[in-house]
Amino acid sequence: MHSVELIEVGPRDGLQNESRLLSTVDKIELIECCVAAGLRRIEAVSFARPEKVPQLADAEDVMASVPRVPGVSYAGLVLNRKGLYRALAAGVDEVNVVVATTEEFSRRNLGVGVEDALKSWTEIAAEAASTGVRTTVTLAAAFGCPFSGDVAVEEVIGIARRIAEARPDEISLADTIGVGTPDQVRRLANGVRAVAPGVPLRGHFHNTRNTGYANALAALDCGVATLDVTVGGIGGCPYTPSPQGNVATEDVLYALDRMGVRTGVDVNAVLDISAWLSERLGREVPALLGRAGTFPPTT
Amino acid sequence: MHSVELIEVGPRDGLQNESRLLSTVDKIELIECCVAAGLRRIEAVSFARPEKVPQLADAEDVMASVPRVPGVSYAGLVLNRKGLYRALAAGVDEVNVVVATTEEFSRRNLGVGVEDALKSWTEIAAEAASTGVRTTVTLAAAFGCPFSGDVAVEEVIGIARRIAEARPDEISLADTIGVGTPDQVRRLANGVRAVAPGVPLRGHFHNTRNTGYANALAALDCGVATLDVTVGGIGGCPYTPSPQGNVATEDVLYALDRMGVRTGVDVNAVLDISAWLSERLGREVPALLGRAGTFPPTT
Repeated sequence: MHSVELIEVGPRDGLQNESRLLSTVDKIELIECCVAAGLRRIEAVSFARPEKVPQLADAEDVMASVPRVPGVSYAGLVLNRKGLYRALAAGVDEVNVVVATTEEFSRRNLGVGVEDALKSWTEIAAEAASTGVRTTVTLAAAFGCPFSGDVAVEEVIGIARRIAEARPDEISLADTIGVGTPDQVRRLANGVRAVAPGVPLRGHFHNTRNTGYANALAALDCGVATLDVTVGGIGGCPYTPSPQGNVATEDVLYALDRMGVRTGVDVNAVLDISAWLSERLGREVPALLGRAGTFPPTT
Repeated sequence: MHSVELIEVGPRDGLQNESRLLSTVDKIELIECCVAAGLRRIEAVSFARPEKVPQLADAEDVMASVPRVPGVSYAGLVLNRKGLYRALAAGVDEVNVVVATTEEFSRRNLGVGVEDALKSWTEIAAEAASTGVRTTVTLAAAFGCPFSGDVAVEEVIGIARRIAEARPDEISLADTIGVGTPDQVRRLANGVRAVAPGVPLRGHFHNTRNTGYANALAALDCGVATLDVTVGGIGGCPYTPSPQGNVATEDVLYALDRMGVRTGVDVNAVLDISAWLSERLGREVPALLGRAGTFPPTT
């Protein structure tokens, strides 16, 4: 593995569960700084119902002001067709459509069962294709469900097979609650690849139980070339108390830089954003590199 | 990999940098509980000069009262022959001898250069062999040095070759300051195995920059069958500020249990010890499992 694509999902998944509201201006500054640091794909907004996620209610305002830089792609999370129309109107480059792996998670988070979510995805796929917007489908709770517990790999693969029929540009394997382990990453990645040949895989890991970084690196080892990260490692899980959130942009970068894997992202610039974000959120961020320092020391 | 041996090093490396002194009685309780939880090798004490590490000055008293259970082995850290004699008098089952990989680290931590440390190890090896005490040699700062920066893999392998001449029972690859990455683990483990054929390898990882768990699992993947862990993930690094310490017994157990790897250690018992230790130390421990909970939930 020589290079890896990092998707900054801090503005969306990272902020989603933060109690302190970040202003629209601050969100735009966060996104501008991420672009300046070299990140080329940014999940900037969510088109979930604003009353459901107040932190992300300003999606249209954020999208109206993001820096339009050649090569930079902005994604919005989309849960249904109504969300898609908002996303298209707001001018996103890609939509991230969520399909959950269990009935319980699907009903509680998307408001519909798995079959209806798949139907919705198929409709979204057709409309997105006609507009040229790229599509990702995120398999939520693919490594375990906060309501139903273990999720069989075969179950996830079965749903991925259905998703693949509508030809997504990417499938994301999401450990939404941070319960996965590296062997599970390998089984899922290989299994999904087999039923969705040619569809690039993306990994989304939370470090809730200290397996997130091992999972992210295991994913890269088995051919997942794109990882979701959040500056500062923000992004707690609503179902599980843990001081850690998504895997942190700077901590993932530390490992990749040391391993000689190219990302195009400047770790020192990310450390600056992380310090700024920590101040704005009024709390220490979970990422460790800002406290421990890069290595070898540059002094 | 079907089973892994965990060495609880909390009483030694874990406590070494804790500011609040733990009483001898508390240390013995910690060790008793670890044994009850199923841990079979415990690095209980250090025979460094007491004035250097006040937290561990009561080595003889601790060793006098540890529970003598068939199959449980107690180790003491030893930096020189004088330490060995104290260790033998105190009744340890094994000694862990430190050899550093850089001249600067060796002089600052062991008070002698690398050549003298190797000579000291050779003498200790001969004496230990005549007494039946098992020996481990820990290659300190094998993944990077806080003073000299990067350490070439070839340098570490060269020192390991010298160490192997005196026939240690085990060689431990120690990421003393938490800078390593999984690819480096693989290169070092394979390289050291080649110059020390038949000598079991042990891994010692700190999670200073969020690579510790990935490194630990990578080590298991390339044939290292023994890992150092500390209850609660205590064990900060004196050279690097980070809220994380050694990889935590409970967080490593979570991953191994989920992966179906046998350890003989009860994760719920470890969680209880961790909560007790947190109270005794007067601070939250860095391990995450106690806060996030095991999965799937047992309720």
